[in-house]
Amino acid sequence: MRQHSSQSTTFEMKPIGFVRSPYAETTQVPKGCGVTHTTEGVLEILSEYEEGLMDIEGFSHLFVIWAFHRAESSALMGKPPTDDRAHGVFATRSPRRPNPIALTVVELIRREGPSLHVRGVDMLDGTPILDIKPYLSSVPAENLKRGWLAEAEKRKQEQNR
Amino acid sequence: MRQHSSQSTTFEMKPIGFVRSPYAETTQVPKGCGVTHTTEGVLEILSEYEEGLMDIEGFSHLFVIWAFHRAESSALMGKPPTDDRAHGVFATRSPRRPNPIALTVVELIRREGPSLHVRGVDMLDGTPILDIKPYLSSVPAENLKRGWLAEAEKRKQEQNR
Repeated sequence: MRQHSSQSTTFEMKPIGFVRSPYAETTQVPKGCGVTHTTEGVLEILSEYEEGLMDIEGFSHLFVIWAFHRAESSALMGKPPTDDRAHGVFATRSPRRPNPIALTVVELIRREGPSLHVRGVDMLDGTPILDIKPYLSSVPAENLKRGWLAEAEKRKQEQNR
Repeated sequence: MRQHSSQSTTFEMKPIGFVRSPYAETTQVPKGCGVTHTTEGVLEILSEYEEGLMDIEGFSHLFVIWAFHRAESSALMGKPPTDDRAHGVFATRSPRRPNPIALTVVELIRREGPSLHVRGVDMLDGTPILDIKPYLSSVPAENLKRGWLAEAEKRKQEQNR
């Protein structure tokens, strides 16, 4: 099969910009159950890509695809901060992934030329941005199942009772 | 600044698996206003990464991050199928992006070992998968602004009236 013979293909990704965030260390980024990210930051897009931002102002929310540039290894199983049990890496947002790709939904506050002021950053200052896409639709909350995370939250609530 | 001196850093991404989809050519993938993707397909994860799927069955929806492996060039401006006007690439889902990264939300139907049967594929058969993450939360529909897309839809509705 053509596709599987290309298993060794790799894709080289380059930063299109960098995040300005108040977080210098991963320990400063709020984590865990029920955390909502309301921290403001700036997506500074490199001038050579600024033209690609045209009309982005019309969207209230954006997907930011970025690189876990500090992750030095990967693991297929890991214990997230939200649970005391290990889960498969593809069922978590662990930075130690086969490909160091991260995804954050942010709210666009305003654009100033190549700078997008956003709310909801959970990245470190200086994080490389790989892509930005408009956030277009939502899965209705009532159709969503949240797997081990819902169970971990429930266990924690029961412990705190 | 440390970060901007690392502007030349690149990140090498490798497939963790491949998509099985009924689409052999991009022209077969439904596009345009109001398209909902209900097509079923399979995410075939390579056996070396199968352990990373543990507990993924508990999630109803997944983010699939994949590579536009057929895109041969990029453009900062482009006319999407949903509009007759050009927009910046970061305000669209065009495959011709600075980094050929794509993002699709799919519904997980069932898992069979390393194979995730999903609904909502819009990828070609043989597409390399770079990452899978649980889809955890939604932006409430009433808080969402859809930019040029909402305007393009409105124009089309008026034309059809």
